[in-house]
Amino acid sequence: MAKELKELTPRSVSYSQWYQDLVIKADLAENSAVRGCMVIKPYGYAIWEKMQRQLDQMFKDTGHVNAYFPLFIPKSFLSREADHVEGFAKECAVVTHYRLKTNPEGGVVVDPAARLEEELIVRPTSETIIWNTYKNWIQSYRDLPILCNQWANVVRWEMRTRLFLRTAEFLWQEGHTAHATREEAIEEAQKMINVYARFAEEYMAVPVIKGVKSASERFAGAVDTYTIEALMQDGKALQSGTSHFLGQNFAKAFDVTFVNKEGVRELVWATSWGVSTRLMGALIMSHSDDNGLVLPPHLAPYQVVIVPIYKSDEQLAQINEKAGNIVEKLKAMGISVKYDNADNKKPGWKFSEYELKGVPVRLAMGARDLENNTIEVARRDTLTKETVSCDNIELYVRDLLEEIQANIYKKALDYRNSQIKEVNSYDEFKQRIDEGGFFAAHWDGTPETEALIKEETKATIRCIPLEGYKESGKCIVTGKPSAGRVLIARAY
Amino acid sequence: MAKELKELTPRSVSYSQWYQDLVIKADLAENSAVRGCMVIKPYGYAIWEKMQRQLDQMFKDTGHVNAYFPLFIPKSFLSREADHVEGFAKECAVVTHYRLKTNPEGGVVVDPAARLEEELIVRPTSETIIWNTYKNWIQSYRDLPILCNQWANVVRWEMRTRLFLRTAEFLWQEGHTAHATREEAIEEAQKMINVYARFAEEYMAVPVIKGVKSASERFAGAVDTYTIEALMQDGKALQSGTSHFLGQNFAKAFDVTFVNKEGVRELVWATSWGVSTRLMGALIMSHSDDNGLVLPPHLAPYQVVIVPIYKSDEQLAQINEKAGNIVEKLKAMGISVKYDNADNKKPGWKFSEYELKGVPVRLAMGARDLENNTIEVARRDTLTKETVSCDNIELYVRDLLEEIQANIYKKALDYRNSQIKEVNSYDEFKQRIDEGGFFAAHWDGTPETEALIKEETKATIRCIPLEGYKESGKCIVTGKPSAGRVLIARAY
Repeated sequence: MAKELKELTPRSVSYSQWYQDLVIKADLAENSAVRGCMVIKPYGYAIWEKMQRQLDQMFKDTGHVNAYFPLFIPKSFLSREADHVEGFAKECAVVTHYRLKTNPEGGVVVDPAARLEEELIVRPTSETIIWNTYKNWIQSYRDLPILCNQWANVVRWEMRTRLFLRTAEFLWQEGHTAHATREEAIEEAQKMINVYARFAEEYMAVPVIKGVKSASERFAGAVDTYTIEALMQDGKALQSGTSHFLGQNFAKAFDVTFVNKEGVRELVWATSWGVSTRLMGALIMSHSDDNGLVLPPHLAPYQVVIVPIYKSDEQLAQINEKAGNIVEKLKAMGISVKYDNADNKKPGWKFSEYELKGVPVRLAMGARDLENNTIEVARRDTLTKETVSCDNIELYVRDLLEEIQANIYKKALDYRNSQIKEVNSYDEFKQRIDEGGFFAAHWDGTPETEALIKEETKATIRCIPLEGYKESGKCIVTGKPSAGRVLIARAY
Repeated sequence: MAKELKELTPRSVSYSQWYQDLVIKADLAENSAVRGCMVIKPYGYAIWEKMQRQLDQMFKDTGHVNAYFPLFIPKSFLSREADHVEGFAKECAVVTHYRLKTNPEGGVVVDPAARLEEELIVRPTSETIIWNTYKNWIQSYRDLPILCNQWANVVRWEMRTRLFLRTAEFLWQEGHTAHATREEAIEEAQKMINVYARFAEEYMAVPVIKGVKSASERFAGAVDTYTIEALMQDGKALQSGTSHFLGQNFAKAFDVTFVNKEGVRELVWATSWGVSTRLMGALIMSHSDDNGLVLPPHLAPYQVVIVPIYKSDEQLAQINEKAGNIVEKLKAMGISVKYDNADNKKPGWKFSEYELKGVPVRLAMGARDLENNTIEVARRDTLTKETVSCDNIELYVRDLLEEIQANIYKKALDYRNSQIKEVNSYDEFKQRIDEGGFFAAHWDGTPETEALIKEETKATIRCIPLEGYKESGKCIVTGKPSAGRVLIARAY
């Protein structure tokens, strides 16, 4: 593929076209023949696998186990929890038949004789089927807590879709826990939003604000929804993970009770929490530039690529040997590295390709490097190069990867912090909303005011932050009292 | 739960009830509220995760990458390959609508206004959607081979289901590769059946016979299907993995061509290969006994459990310290171990529980062991016990785990080998088929004879073995010439 085909629309021209170009050209994902469903390509999937591996470890370290529940949910289950059905019934794939038959006129048609008695919904989320299962698992306080997680695909029939950010089918994990007390369930919901925040910051290098959702932005069926909110380079917020305290709503709907230590029967308390392939969108939009993807070393499929630059087979043989040695040393330190000595592509082409793919560190070795025992080190985050000695290059690279990880995070954090703006009047807010960023403003806590802001500015209350902003004031819209500032932004 | 509730129906009374009891009582899986769909419980899922992790590594070591393709397949795609639609259209979940609406009489109903223009099929396998995608990925020989694998759920609307063995929804991996030449594709299909055989034997400790399927047992759309066939303790065969050489069938159906090195356009060659949660059934039925599961150490979630036996808190404290030390040493060697000092259950209860769950090695430490610096070691495979010194116990356990792994395999292999029976007349075959086992017999190679055998004996040709049985002879049914023996058995 010629170099120009790899060029991206600059962010300054169109941020959304840049995103689309990048996802496609860096081989992360593409649209499929099925409306709204994406194909996650091998390079994109390799990043998702690294995310999964790390999150899974963090879930296990906090006492959770994996399980698997059915893809299908009987239609009647959805109706059991009133808010839940309201939130999910409007956007779901419905299975009505279980057989096709040959069409005498060619092809196949649905066999009308194979109609299901009760339609099945492709899970948009699994609270209902899981709580129907938990009913049989829970008798006594000794059966609690249940701390299950599931890695799965889910379907929400979105009308307007964008790769990774909003797709009809997406991959995610959903934790579903059952507890004997309200306090324990709240603690679990908070613990998991903290796990998500730590993952976002330490692995994705994406700074997030932890907060609570307003009533109208809550998960359908939750008592409280905790969220982590990130800010993309275009000033729009992206909800990156949520953890819900579900109270006893699903226990009531599915009649899940337990006998406590005192011998009294009580309803069980619940949480659920999830992150999805949407995180890929957050990762891409937080760090990347007009040259392509910028990946944090902690999640890059290849952390290092080595490219030989040679004019003869003899030179290549020498470089192969020396580079092979460096590859071994890097691998021994747990660093993932690719040595690309494919002879059908020029070094310049390879450089662009690995820039586009966001490989954090690129090493290049040529004839002069062989003479001098040196190697060229290029950083993807700063696009800077330097020539260093090959002695202890593995230690140099190891430290550089951590420096890049820290630098990417700091850059995103500085940007995010620069984009949190206190506003004290609705006029000021309306004038500045097009700038993008988070607006810290007082709100009277009513759904009416929230709806008005959304209607007039297309911005939403992203969260009531858990930390900071606690001084009281007056709502920017109504002047009524407010206990603290909330963060308002336009969002993906 | 009381001990008697954990007891299994003996295999001699009812093998199928024993299997059902074991799957339920060892907390591996259970039926869900959705007909034919199972819930994989945490302990069962932990075994599946270990299988996944190992298989995934073996796929990567042989050059494959993971990707993800849509859950849904447009109905028209299925019809493109004639054999394929014949094989899969009769048992599929069909999505016809994308919205529910509130029913004035309560609950929700399908919104008739939200009917899809073209119905979507929940994937029963993904050849069609993947080859429709590959069409855009492949232009030239430089784009080949493509070596993708996908971990996914699939749905086949089975009428009679059994946990793990045959369920409407199951989890699996499906590899889909594209090649420039026929030879390379055949080599790939064979390579992957060898990977499956190695996994079955070295990790599951299940001996398998590699072979080729007869035309009527082939995957719908394949030119050749390679299979690994295992034998369960009741003498029935279980197809445990298949790898298909698909020729150019899907390339033709989806018009996937490439320009070769000579500049000539050609159709692409294909393979696909998969194993599923059905392997859990093979694992359970190969080794387990009337006391419960017997797990090979290479796939056991816990390889070792340590149970303290004490009469006072002081004794417990001493055992905790000493056992904690052993736990550390075992973990340092990469052995997964659980120390169960929960005080609400008696040692006898714990012993039964871990026997039921198939933990390969159980260590128990009591007061006398403390005095003598010893520990009791119980093997799950042989149900034997011995008392050994605590000195270097970690080395002893490490070697014992490998010995158990080898012993379980050998036991299964000896049994399987004892159940391969040469028969030389159809009368002899019909008389002996109820014994169970593989019958090595001559077959004339015609689908008519194969259908007759199936009709009259409910046994099927499991495979034409890749190794052995190559001497020529006469078909047991028709007396027509045969180039070698095939293996016939009743199967799951």
